[in-house]
Amino acid sequence: MAQTPTRSDAPARTDPPARGTLADRCSIAGTLTALGDTWSIMVLRELFFGVHRFNDLQRDLGVSRSVLSNRLGRLVDLGVARAVPYQDPGERSRLEYRLTRKGVDLLPVMLSLMDWGDRYLYDGDAPVTVHDRTTDEQVRVEMRTPSGRRVEPNEMDARVNAPAADGR
Amino acid sequence: MAQTPTRSDAPARTDPPARGTLADRCSIAGTLTALGDTWSIMVLRELFFGVHRFNDLQRDLGVSRSVLSNRLGRLVDLGVARAVPYQDPGERSRLEYRLTRKGVDLLPVMLSLMDWGDRYLYDGDAPVTVHDRTTDEQVRVEMRTPSGRRVEPNEMDARVNAPAADGR
Repeated sequence: MAQTPTRSDAPARTDPPARGTLADRCSIAGTLTALGDTWSIMVLRELFFGVHRFNDLQRDLGVSRSVLSNRLGRLVDLGVARAVPYQDPGERSRLEYRLTRKGVDLLPVMLSLMDWGDRYLYDGDAPVTVHDRTTDEQVRVEMRTPSGRRVEPNEMDARVNAPAADGR
Repeated sequence: MAQTPTRSDAPARTDPPARGTLADRCSIAGTLTALGDTWSIMVLRELFFGVHRFNDLQRDLGVSRSVLSNRLGRLVDLGVARAVPYQDPGERSRLEYRLTRKGVDLLPVMLSLMDWGDRYLYDGDAPVTVHDRTTDEQVRVEMRTPSGRRVEPNEMDARVNAPAADGR
């Protein structure tokens, strides 16, 4: 993959990229910055896997209540998860956490991280696999065009687009 | 997506996941831990975009030389990039950085982060798009089975697999 234009010079920075710096006009940095740290992504993983309740999340992740509470709050603020009340018989009402559409749309990120890790960290001995409920086949991410052509990395070019008129 | 078995209880932790803890038997956490921080992923992005030389990387990323040097070293140690000597006429020999196959295989991770950011952080006004050189169409990540069926998130199940006999 090759890039056509080069980006403009930027002042030297030693701190990690943040909103308003590198995240400007880069969707990769923007997404990583929005999600925050690995704990946020681990919480998302749990929500994808069908774990929705605070105590279950805490037990599965082995994380402190304050860290979990903070990361759930971040995911809710970001709009990728929402808190939904539930009530078990004889207990007080509690909240459980569900992915929104915006959150569900992070599934390709999860699956692509998983695919790479399965191949290179586990030599193909995948700890978790995701399957199509209809055909039972394993689901993986692929790079394709709208017309369905599967594209290899050496067949792609990156193109830098002009910002919208409102300066975003 | 729903998970069939649940994982065993783990001791409470307050520090972020690291190799040997959460990264055990989770390819998502493992990949994130291996890659390290957002700077590493920004360096990878540059290598994908065809920027290979230290000074060019430093200029594009606006990062300090020491941070860049550290992250390039990490990517080389991880085996996703390799250093290759080059020599401009009349200058001393220098190193440039190229993705290995292991690195190229991170492209779906980059593209899926990019897709989500384009949609939700830039309202579809993508700062950078990746195109198939043959058809000029935009390349995106899709979730598919080997037989080519495109699968929606609500059509998938996650399955936890038993570890290999050697305990990995």
